[in-house]
Amino acid sequence: MLAVLLAIGTQTGLCQENLWWKTPTTSPEVNANNTVTFRLKAPKAVKVEVVGDFLKNGEKAEMTEGENGIWEYTTPTPLNPELYSYAFMMDGLKINDPSNVFISRDVVTMSNLFLIDGKESNLYKVQDVPHGSVNRVWYHSNKLGADRRLTIYTPAGYETNKQSYPVLYLLHGSGGDEDSWTTLGRAAQIMDNLIAQGKAKPMIVVMTNGNAALQATWGEAPAGFVTPTIELPKVTDGSFEDAFPEIVSFVDKAYRTIAKKQKRAIAGLSMGGFHSMQISKEYPAMFDYVGLFSASARFKGKGESHVYNNCEGKIRKQFAQKPSLYWIAIGKDDFLYEQNQQFRKFLDDNKCPYTYVESEGGHIWRNWRNYLSEFVPLLFK
Amino acid sequence: MLAVLLAIGTQTGLCQENLWWKTPTTSPEVNANNTVTFRLKAPKAVKVEVVGDFLKNGEKAEMTEGENGIWEYTTPTPLNPELYSYAFMMDGLKINDPSNVFISRDVVTMSNLFLIDGKESNLYKVQDVPHGSVNRVWYHSNKLGADRRLTIYTPAGYETNKQSYPVLYLLHGSGGDEDSWTTLGRAAQIMDNLIAQGKAKPMIVVMTNGNAALQATWGEAPAGFVTPTIELPKVTDGSFEDAFPEIVSFVDKAYRTIAKKQKRAIAGLSMGGFHSMQISKEYPAMFDYVGLFSASARFKGKGESHVYNNCEGKIRKQFAQKPSLYWIAIGKDDFLYEQNQQFRKFLDDNKCPYTYVESEGGHIWRNWRNYLSEFVPLLFK
Repeated sequence: MLAVLLAIGTQTGLCQENLWWKTPTTSPEVNANNTVTFRLKAPKAVKVEVVGDFLKNGEKAEMTEGENGIWEYTTPTPLNPELYSYAFMMDGLKINDPSNVFISRDVVTMSNLFLIDGKESNLYKVQDVPHGSVNRVWYHSNKLGADRRLTIYTPAGYETNKQSYPVLYLLHGSGGDEDSWTTLGRAAQIMDNLIAQGKAKPMIVVMTNGNAALQATWGEAPAGFVTPTIELPKVTDGSFEDAFPEIVSFVDKAYRTIAKKQKRAIAGLSMGGFHSMQISKEYPAMFDYVGLFSASARFKGKGESHVYNNCEGKIRKQFAQKPSLYWIAIGKDDFLYEQNQQFRKFLDDNKCPYTYVESEGGHIWRNWRNYLSEFVPLLFK
Repeated sequence: MLAVLLAIGTQTGLCQENLWWKTPTTSPEVNANNTVTFRLKAPKAVKVEVVGDFLKNGEKAEMTEGENGIWEYTTPTPLNPELYSYAFMMDGLKINDPSNVFISRDVVTMSNLFLIDGKESNLYKVQDVPHGSVNRVWYHSNKLGADRRLTIYTPAGYETNKQSYPVLYLLHGSGGDEDSWTTLGRAAQIMDNLIAQGKAKPMIVVMTNGNAALQATWGEAPAGFVTPTIELPKVTDGSFEDAFPEIVSFVDKAYRTIAKKQKRAIAGLSMGGFHSMQISKEYPAMFDYVGLFSASARFKGKGESHVYNNCEGKIRKQFAQKPSLYWIAIGKDDFLYEQNQQFRKFLDDNKCPYTYVESEGGHIWRNWRNYLSEFVPLLFK
């Protein structure tokens, strides 16, 4: 029947308007030796380049025109196992690869994705292991006066067993939202794989939207299909941190959690690291595990919220209650590196024990996926 | 703090690699009178056109180059309230709009989306009403020998109340998957809005993957980031239909359903309509409501599955049990129109009562969203 459907569809042009059944060419192609070939069919283009995070920052790789107007570029050396993103520059215009339907948004940057198999990227792949669920669910915030969306990972088996689970609250950075950790962050795959390998305890992961003025990620809120921006009101002004216990209350009511400090963790990247630091010190009886990934490790946000009053004193009080883990990770090239060293000095001076991880690289998703993969096995032991 | 972050990020280029903070231009722009302006900044392009489902099938609208290399096209007349998709043709190359992050896949066609507000499209919008959850959850199929993914909508309040709900099983067409109804189908918005308006009963909606050879939508299965195709084995060969009761068993175990025929519906578009017809007649004690949207209304699939044996007799047996609703909808221009008339003749000849809806247009999502919006209010009365 499929063949009939197709034949009729192709003849009449009626089988879904403007629909392609084939990509224009094969791109990207991961070759046997882990070099990668990119192709773009653009017979009329004058210059086509590849940009991507496998190249040095800002570098462009020039493509060469071959037969049938297909431009091509193959990386000169194999790429390391990793999840990569890229786009094309065609005569100066940045476009996505029309042959690759895997695409992800970071603020307004749309990038195509590909993955090089191997030990380092195995955690990011959908493996043949039991899979948890990823749920988009709405809670009501009285303090923020809005219904707001959460992304909630529940471990494999949650729907059909009766167990209760510890909870990790996992926060995004500036420009991100409740979708970021499950798209570029690969959080569901990382959790599935670490749990299947026995390296992490089964847990619920709650991914919030840390932009207090937003109800949900772009396009999923009553505001409609509006263009994303990071120039938002109510970001790091204390409102999100102040209203955070509403999320914990909702999650403890809506899911089978173990609702106590010893079974709660909070971690975040960049702005989410700032939020994790502020929230965990504001509610010291709430979280026993704290993770700061490339955090903006500052005591003050914007404006005069009570959340930012006497941050130093509150952190000392938090550490007096001996959290099981306070984990800080930063890349050597991160623009927040120096700030993290200042924060470490404060913790050292105040005899607040923490774990410190210093990685290569900067303020990038590659590091945040790694940090999550290292942090999660340390939780709820 | 945000300002500081941004300033540093921009200076050093370190604040997430290859990241844009602004789109190149504003596109699309819905004007006050519901005309729409599309823009593409492409100074070196020779010819740029818009293609999209607001144009007549196959038509292209030529754009005009203005200042700063920005090409522009404004529709000559206002567009009707609807969800539309489009792309650009730049010197013959089909590309997505780099200024619009809202994009959806249909097989391998990536299209940008926009919505014209109004009465007809109000159901497709995220309105300020209570929102249900959309869950990606995995079940195990013994018959298909694989873990497989479902998309499950639960109505607002499900997580925190104790109620049990009726269930609609909602099936996609050829080339689609368990994501299709929540992306181009806008099923979550349609359900939220119909329930909030009191026009539909709160219900659970289970969206399956009807390609028996696939575990999940492209990129979300162990196969990895492989290019989508509709040339799949085990499509309409009876395996999906035969294994369907496993899904119902899982859903009845994992969710608070009212597990009886009177509280179960099944509906699908195109191939999913074929599946709905086959499954409902194969298990006549399972579903009391059946919806065929632009269905491939045939008695036989491919190959010699027992599912397709004596289809006519099984349908007579199904109708002998008096289903509450058997609902058939088809567009006047649909390439399956004639087939649906033949199926109606069979039902008429056999005195099998059904409801028939004939709409304008063809085999397109616009119709399927409408059919869903008309069908759901008729369920579980």
